[in-house]
Amino acid sequence: MANSKLIEMIPFQGIAEISKGQDIGEIIIESSRKQRTPIRDNDVLVITHKIVSKAEGQVINLASITPSTFALRVGRHIGKDPKQVEVILSQSRRLVKMVKGLIITETSHGFVCANAGVDQSNVKKGNIVLLPQRPDKSAQQIRNKIRAKTGKHVAVIISDTFGRPWREGQVDVAIGIAGLDPFADYRGMRDQYGYDLKASVICIADELASAAELCMNKLDRVPAVIIRGYKFKKAENVSSRSLARKPARDLFR
Amino acid sequence: MANSKLIEMIPFQGIAEISKGQDIGEIIIESSRKQRTPIRDNDVLVITHKIVSKAEGQVINLASITPSTFALRVGRHIGKDPKQVEVILSQSRRLVKMVKGLIITETSHGFVCANAGVDQSNVKKGNIVLLPQRPDKSAQQIRNKIRAKTGKHVAVIISDTFGRPWREGQVDVAIGIAGLDPFADYRGMRDQYGYDLKASVICIADELASAAELCMNKLDRVPAVIIRGYKFKKAENVSSRSLARKPARDLFR
Repeated sequence: MANSKLIEMIPFQGIAEISKGQDIGEIIIESSRKQRTPIRDNDVLVITHKIVSKAEGQVINLASITPSTFALRVGRHIGKDPKQVEVILSQSRRLVKMVKGLIITETSHGFVCANAGVDQSNVKKGNIVLLPQRPDKSAQQIRNKIRAKTGKHVAVIISDTFGRPWREGQVDVAIGIAGLDPFADYRGMRDQYGYDLKASVICIADELASAAELCMNKLDRVPAVIIRGYKFKKAENVSSRSLARKPARDLFR
Repeated sequence: MANSKLIEMIPFQGIAEISKGQDIGEIIIESSRKQRTPIRDNDVLVITHKIVSKAEGQVINLASITPSTFALRVGRHIGKDPKQVEVILSQSRRLVKMVKGLIITETSHGFVCANAGVDQSNVKKGNIVLLPQRPDKSAQQIRNKIRAKTGKHVAVIISDTFGRPWREGQVDVAIGIAGLDPFADYRGMRDQYGYDLKASVICIADELASAAELCMNKLDRVPAVIIRGYKFKKAENVSSRSLARKPARDLFR
């Protein structure tokens, strides 16, 4: 098909369980070789944070946790394991809302999400996975490894599954980025009628994360996806903190 | 590349300006023929609402609007054209927030978004485009036309660009759906460790809309995209109302 604007999404399959100390960059390169889809320049690699967190040892055994008085009380009040509550609090800098079974907080990174991104799925029973401590740094390390080992210049997005207000269901969003401008900013540009597109700043990093989720499927063990053919704006020293809305700009706090 | 799970996104290019009374189904079939990418069974077609609204005559000339006293006052208060305010109010059933230049409302469909989805970009100067009145019906009609004319069974998503709380930038979401279950519901399923995925309901309709936006680019006149290779769950009589979070379930009202 001779369509220069075609975008392809290629899942990495057959990546085995990740444990602490493994190198996600190496694992992705290895997987791309095995399935004969070599990484190319300008690919966007979207990687679920879970394998990054596991590789970085961001996994806690709940048995090791002693909940505080506050965590015990909150746990009783909302019907949630106080040890989990303790871990969630340890990852947060602000409590947004607590209702039965659910705590919404602002994480130490500034993301507002359920349970501070702490998650019990796809991990050994009794364990709980945290978000990476510095997801942009994690993304950059993977990007650097790929450049060093294959010579290819890519962008990397680390993703997680977040709920959102107003709309049902969850979607994947970007929590770590490297090598691309996370926004497509049309402000100051004009459409074909000469209208100034003053309100249009698209968060393409989140759209890329959501797109990749379509290839991931929670039961299929696809922890990483190549998005190929998307023309992104390259950028260095980017930060996923720019994706968290500043309090002053957030109408809904 | 022998990867059975590859997803492709193919933009429809060269679709000219749409005017009232045109048939979007016909136009998409014609475009797919011209660019030699025939529609296939199980394609998801994502179509920006703007061309649907234009075809359905959901365009208002602002000169024809007489603002109410309330619209005049709001316009003065937040610094927005009172005629625009009047149109926004006419499309809304609840006001969520007003700040300078921006009104966030719940539309008659139940979507919470800026300016009730009313938009001045990519339309003749002095005109303003509304959302389709019944976007699910619009999606179904396009789907039916494609089935009738090509024999192909597809799903259709009508999309718009929405802002969201907590995160910077806008993303495309689904405002009309036909032929697919908008959610991938993992509740009750177990991951490889036997953990019950109790919180996982992914809004794949929004993810598909966001993915398609990556092919659209606001300046490139790509109003529709084929997403091919995504295995969706077929469903009839679906409604985008299910995508709007019910007030009782929304922690953020």
